[in-house]
Amino acid sequence: MNNKTGVLSGVRVLDLTRVLAGPYCGMMLADFGADVIKIELPGKGDDARANAPQINGESAYFMNLNRNKRGITLNLKSEQGRNIFLKMVRNSDIVLENYRPGVMEKLGLGYEDLRKVNPAIIYGAVSGFGHTGPYSRRAGYDIIGQAMSGLMSTTGWPDTPPTRTGTAIADVVGGMSCAIGVLAAYANRLKTGVGDKVDIALVDAMVSSLEIINIIYLNTGRIPTRIGNRYEAIYPYDSFQAQDGYVIIACGNDKLFGLLKQTLKISELEDARFSTNIARVTHHAELKAILERWTCEHPIDQIVELLLAAGIPAAPINTIDRVTKDPHIAGAREMFVDIEHPVAGKITMTGNQVKFSNNKTSIRMPAPTLGQHNHEILKELLNYSDAEIEQLINDGIL
Amino acid sequence: MNNKTGVLSGVRVLDLTRVLAGPYCGMMLADFGADVIKIELPGKGDDARANAPQINGESAYFMNLNRNKRGITLNLKSEQGRNIFLKMVRNSDIVLENYRPGVMEKLGLGYEDLRKVNPAIIYGAVSGFGHTGPYSRRAGYDIIGQAMSGLMSTTGWPDTPPTRTGTAIADVVGGMSCAIGVLAAYANRLKTGVGDKVDIALVDAMVSSLEIINIIYLNTGRIPTRIGNRYEAIYPYDSFQAQDGYVIIACGNDKLFGLLKQTLKISELEDARFSTNIARVTHHAELKAILERWTCEHPIDQIVELLLAAGIPAAPINTIDRVTKDPHIAGAREMFVDIEHPVAGKITMTGNQVKFSNNKTSIRMPAPTLGQHNHEILKELLNYSDAEIEQLINDGIL
Repeated sequence: MNNKTGVLSGVRVLDLTRVLAGPYCGMMLADFGADVIKIELPGKGDDARANAPQINGESAYFMNLNRNKRGITLNLKSEQGRNIFLKMVRNSDIVLENYRPGVMEKLGLGYEDLRKVNPAIIYGAVSGFGHTGPYSRRAGYDIIGQAMSGLMSTTGWPDTPPTRTGTAIADVVGGMSCAIGVLAAYANRLKTGVGDKVDIALVDAMVSSLEIINIIYLNTGRIPTRIGNRYEAIYPYDSFQAQDGYVIIACGNDKLFGLLKQTLKISELEDARFSTNIARVTHHAELKAILERWTCEHPIDQIVELLLAAGIPAAPINTIDRVTKDPHIAGAREMFVDIEHPVAGKITMTGNQVKFSNNKTSIRMPAPTLGQHNHEILKELLNYSDAEIEQLINDGIL
Repeated sequence: MNNKTGVLSGVRVLDLTRVLAGPYCGMMLADFGADVIKIELPGKGDDARANAPQINGESAYFMNLNRNKRGITLNLKSEQGRNIFLKMVRNSDIVLENYRPGVMEKLGLGYEDLRKVNPAIIYGAVSGFGHTGPYSRRAGYDIIGQAMSGLMSTTGWPDTPPTRTGTAIADVVGGMSCAIGVLAAYANRLKTGVGDKVDIALVDAMVSSLEIINIIYLNTGRIPTRIGNRYEAIYPYDSFQAQDGYVIIACGNDKLFGLLKQTLKISELEDARFSTNIARVTHHAELKAILERWTCEHPIDQIVELLLAAGIPAAPINTIDRVTKDPHIAGAREMFVDIEHPVAGKITMTGNQVKFSNNKTSIRMPAPTLGQHNHEILKELLNYSDAEIEQLINDGIL
């Protein structure tokens, strides 16, 4: 079942992660062709197996984030389970975990333990606050990453409370940061033979993503807050009410605003209040009102078509159903992929966003059922016999 | 000025990117020790050099995203400029660009052109819609990525319009996806000698980040929409009004809700409506009202301290000024870093979120002024003489 194609074919990953941030990282490596072995608690497995929506008793949430992985169960709290894991570390390249900091060390499986049996191992850890510092042992969840990084304080409208992003963006950005770190460390280890530990905090990852927002405060003393859909420095670059929903018009410079004036032929747009970008930012509310008097009389698709034809950046604000049916996103870019799962049947997953020219990413295998590859992997990696494996299952080790 | 430490030391990157998504990708590689050479248009440079805030005429926006890079100017539209670039490609590992698809091909510098002079080159491209498909030539900006992916339709409150995330998250997630792709391709090339092209669309990257949101629609037919700060599947895992702002309480399971009941001793919480997670999700509005009667009488820091002491995940919703002064985030995790810039003086940047154990990331060099390293790099890489370089500058090539 090893994949022979993909940029990471031949790379073995032991994936101890649960729920979202860590599994997203493992999913990227698996989509690229790595042999990612998901290791779960016997009898229970990843908490996300219980998450909605369920299809024939299988979680679609879990199946998306764990496709292309093989799965075993292993009780790491038992001496035997720990030894099996250490043997697997000897012939693997990368270990991923997202336990609360200290848990792996307590199991005798921290980075310092693993590098003793394999100095080349890459150890990728995702946690709420990272493995150092005063908050290190606090539980970290997506909403806590969004809240403590300041992201929520800048998302929303002047008259709404701080607002979270509609997806678990701290988990996703944390998982992506971990993938970046382990891949960079792996490239280095191919040249030096020496591994590394990558320590990602959800909060840090969100702070990095806030780049210009932090920079404004740090370098001017002004505290950025909630300003709706407009941006700090350019206008009109915002959402506008259309007849049947909302539409984006994004004129990032004078040239594009000039095109907009030519196209709409609204005399008020010629006013001196709108003659430069800085003036437009100052008078954004008046400019928005003028543009919305026009947009609200036309349907989204007609506005987008008209503006794009004139060379003006514009887009619909898609609802999720529109996205999944879009001829570009769903069609040409293949961002939704069907796969046959042995229990759930045909299910639709999100495709991988990284498109290589010479080594395709592929969704070649559904997520494992709990312990599905216990026999296969213990034979292949460690030469265990069927009888030995059955004994381990009976003893609750697997 | 080459860096001798860092997981990517010895890796050379030619960075043609502008503004945010591409430069963020190059910044990650530069922070890891790669020799990233930013290549800009003579006389003008990256558009972001004009972005606010400006410090002594230097853009803090630009300086953050381009620290640790060396900089040259080069007119790629001239035959001489194009030839100099191709010579540099011969002894580089990675090329990054975020032009509109087709621009590099028109310059004779598309992936197919570059692989002819260096088959091992890794070519990383970020654009709004990617290099294939019907929308490929459309301009893509952050707000368009957030809008068309469906993210905005799920961010905000039931009574607000679709809402963008408070940072340019599509640009950041696009840049991170590009970093993941080029690093995976680079690891593969270390083993095979063969390069690859990585094609990232901002819209695709956001679709991937929406994982469970897409999955809900694709597998149940229900269209997820704006539900404020609560999540689809767990409660109480939300924001609550405190005396002096908002606070997060995140009880992801029955055990944590049990601890919350023990701690608060509010009899209504014992009600059958709140006895299971599914029941709490159904009755989320009533549960929120009960909890807010308590939270609104206490200051944020007191609530967080009390709940954390009881083992209940809780956090303040930080404003940006609080984040930059936080003893964990700013202190132990070093997420804000000062650097001395020759023109701007001492400025504060965002630190890198990827923490390695054996190979530190570092902010060792401020962003280049326009063309700062023209002499240094053309001598070092291509053996040009000072006289030849001066001639190129006079001819408008550099």
